[in-house]
Amino acid sequence: MILVRHGQSEWNLANRFTGWWDVDVTEKGVEEARAAGRLLKDRGILPTLAFTSLQTRAIKTLHLALEECGRLWIPEIKDWRLNERHYGGLTGLDKQQTREKHGEEQVHVWRRSFDEPPPPIEAGSEFDLSADPRYAGITVPAAESLKLTIERVLPYYQEAIVPRLADGETVIVSAHGNSLRALVKHLSAISDDDITGLEIPTGQPIVYEFDAEMTPGERYYLKDR
Amino acid sequence: MILVRHGQSEWNLANRFTGWWDVDVTEKGVEEARAAGRLLKDRGILPTLAFTSLQTRAIKTLHLALEECGRLWIPEIKDWRLNERHYGGLTGLDKQQTREKHGEEQVHVWRRSFDEPPPPIEAGSEFDLSADPRYAGITVPAAESLKLTIERVLPYYQEAIVPRLADGETVIVSAHGNSLRALVKHLSAISDDDITGLEIPTGQPIVYEFDAEMTPGERYYLKDR
Repeated sequence: MILVRHGQSEWNLANRFTGWWDVDVTEKGVEEARAAGRLLKDRGILPTLAFTSLQTRAIKTLHLALEECGRLWIPEIKDWRLNERHYGGLTGLDKQQTREKHGEEQVHVWRRSFDEPPPPIEAGSEFDLSADPRYAGITVPAAESLKLTIERVLPYYQEAIVPRLADGETVIVSAHGNSLRALVKHLSAISDDDITGLEIPTGQPIVYEFDAEMTPGERYYLKDR
Repeated sequence: MILVRHGQSEWNLANRFTGWWDVDVTEKGVEEARAAGRLLKDRGILPTLAFTSLQTRAIKTLHLALEECGRLWIPEIKDWRLNERHYGGLTGLDKQQTREKHGEEQVHVWRRSFDEPPPPIEAGSEFDLSADPRYAGITVPAAESLKLTIERVLPYYQEAIVPRLADGETVIVSAHGNSLRALVKHLSAISDDDITGLEIPTGQPIVYEFDAEMTPGERYYLKDR
């Protein structure tokens, strides 16, 4: 299984909390995605099945990477449960604004706490996505901790992805910092305390190989092989 | 239902028989695809479900159009039965080469005959795709007439697409000159003789609206509404 965090987004660059807000990738992000695809091709690790979130930055990263490795034709499944953590009322704020509004210490807690969600998004906020047709039939969360994020990512992984890995598919998952943390925490048995500090770099394929019992081996960056 | 023929491809431009060979879209083709997406957005005809072939030029056209109309997140289903007609032994030849090899009259027959397939692709031809992993599990045809193309497109349409239209989905099909001819022939009741001369322009959305009995209305170009 190949995990790829989307290439640099406009709000990664602007240092704003993004979460479920649908920002595009930057030019640099496009190039990161293409480089990820070239690396897959170069190492001969060619996906046969793709999963991604409902967010443009992950979908475009997937498409660009697949095009570069000649695999644009593989089946692709999109699901909201692979979305980024929902940053609630922090959505749209940059680091400085957040500090001014909530204080340095509280911001640090929100960024690094495992189970304390940020404040809920305000009703009528310009960043409220509950009426977005993309999320029709889904209760858009008001805010998510990493713990809450894991509680939707992992069941989806178990139900939708593991059976396909067990079938022998080479799965690529194009997703987000926190939805990928959820998978890495599970697969590499990382503690609640340690996972919040684990950085997932953008556009850098991470690989897990599974044995016949579906036990994952050590994770590695494809660039290091 | 929205039908879109892929934007101009490298071999449309070079006037070579393409068929199942996987050529990319040109810069002009990219722009045609984007313009199709902008037109969908402008007219408020927003797809909720996408179908495409296994060929890069149709997949990229779909992605570019969906991105422009803000619908990159809709489910997408790819199937070889929406592929272009397989041009057999003509694949890769330009018009001049084909005339020299087979004679003007025969070429005209192949281009415009409803049921006479071109010569089969030669074993070991550089354009032989039978070992392409994209077509694993499929018997790649040696050559297809329009009739043979229809015989795989229509059953797929009936089985996979019609039920979703009946569910109320707004379906976009991004495909090829001949796989779309197959659909238009069926939906607009066009004769065997007339369909071979019907041109499907690149990147120009064609719309069919269905009544409650799933009877299609007159087809129209979205640009004309």
